[in-house]
Amino acid sequence: VSGELRIVPLAGIPEIGGGDDLAALLGDAIDRAGGLVAGDVLVVAQKAVSKAEGRVAHVPPAQHVAAILDEAARVRRRRGDFVIADTRHGFVCASAGIDRSNTPDDDVVVLLPLDPDASARQLRDALSQRYGIAPAVIVTDTFGRPWRLGTTDVAIGVAGMLPLLDLRGTPDARGRELQATIVCVADELASAAELVMGKARQVPAVLVRGYAVPEGDGAARDLVMPRERDLFP
Amino acid sequence: VSGELRIVPLAGIPEIGGGDDLAALLGDAIDRAGGLVAGDVLVVAQKAVSKAEGRVAHVPPAQHVAAILDEAARVRRRRGDFVIADTRHGFVCASAGIDRSNTPDDDVVVLLPLDPDASARQLRDALSQRYGIAPAVIVTDTFGRPWRLGTTDVAIGVAGMLPLLDLRGTPDARGRELQATIVCVADELASAAELVMGKARQVPAVLVRGYAVPEGDGAARDLVMPRERDLFP
Repeated sequence: VSGELRIVPLAGIPEIGGGDDLAALLGDAIDRAGGLVAGDVLVVAQKAVSKAEGRVAHVPPAQHVAAILDEAARVRRRRGDFVIADTRHGFVCASAGIDRSNTPDDDVVVLLPLDPDASARQLRDALSQRYGIAPAVIVTDTFGRPWRLGTTDVAIGVAGMLPLLDLRGTPDARGRELQATIVCVADELASAAELVMGKARQVPAVLVRGYAVPEGDGAARDLVMPRERDLFP
Repeated sequence: VSGELRIVPLAGIPEIGGGDDLAALLGDAIDRAGGLVAGDVLVVAQKAVSKAEGRVAHVPPAQHVAAILDEAARVRRRRGDFVIADTRHGFVCASAGIDRSNTPDDDVVVLLPLDPDASARQLRDALSQRYGIAPAVIVTDTFGRPWRLGTTDVAIGVAGMLPLLDLRGTPDARGRELQATIVCVADELASAAELVMGKARQVPAVLVRGYAVPEGDGAARDLVMPRERDLFP
């Protein structure tokens, strides 16, 4: 159907370890899925990126909260072991982005990439070399949020697109001006990708095909709300 | 590609007015898109549902804030005309869900459906009559959120599925138990749909094809975080 969007799983990617060439592994998976098409958006789970970059640490369970507090730029709320904190990048999430699931044993935690926007840019550059087409790239993580149960995936790294689609001033269907509406399409793409990546099926990446991204040189850091606009500090 | 997900626009739906048979208009659009397939999820924008249900009000711009305060069950934050409030359903959003865009003139505002879960159930029942297949149905709205710029679409009405995918106890790829992970797939489906529905292209609904929803009789009301777990009151 015209205008439809497809979310294509990139399957068969082996468990990632430190120093692996993630771009090459993703490229091989893209080949198995039929190749890269101009306009494709590559969405990659943070954990694969972090592991390839060696962003893992040995932390015994008893030291887990200490590691979170050490990684946090600012603690917002704490209830026992449950900590909501700002990461170094300005994202607000549980455990300052530290994750224990999908690791080989309880002593290994996965940290966020030091600069996920740079990680996205590196993947974009490497795939551009391979295909002669530069896909937009989004690195995603799984965040909770206030007031609503359940997690959704969001963008923590972006390259080759603007993460926000600014519709202010766009004439809407009735010819009126839309009210201030800026859509975080990077987060919506992350959430769409999560539906296919799931949690347990060895699909750490997808291609989103058929979506015209907002063009520009954006970054996920652009999504952090400035402190003066933060009503829930 | 095996395992891929498709988001199919339902185009050509006329501007909805009070008393319109939305299920019939959606069914006609589904027919134009090739028909309903077992497992399809129908995602419908709140504004189409509200207008069909006559949930519009004449409010002069000078009375807009008063209307928001009247519609709100509880005001969380207010800065001038910008109000973050709980709706009667327990959702937390700007303007208590009142919307002025896409209305024929400045004096008309669109309110949330009184019971969006019931709205979703009615659409599901009507389409089940028409097709002999009962799609899961999600009614979506566009919400901002703390700490991150831009809006994403979320589920405010759900029928024919559970909105949360509970992965607690699911063996993950390494055979370990995942940490407490409950994914709000209804919100992720809403966000995925928004990428296709856009804002200005007369596409108030989509079909999501290829996604196995969590089976059960859930509702979007189930997504409201209980007050005792709310760390950002």
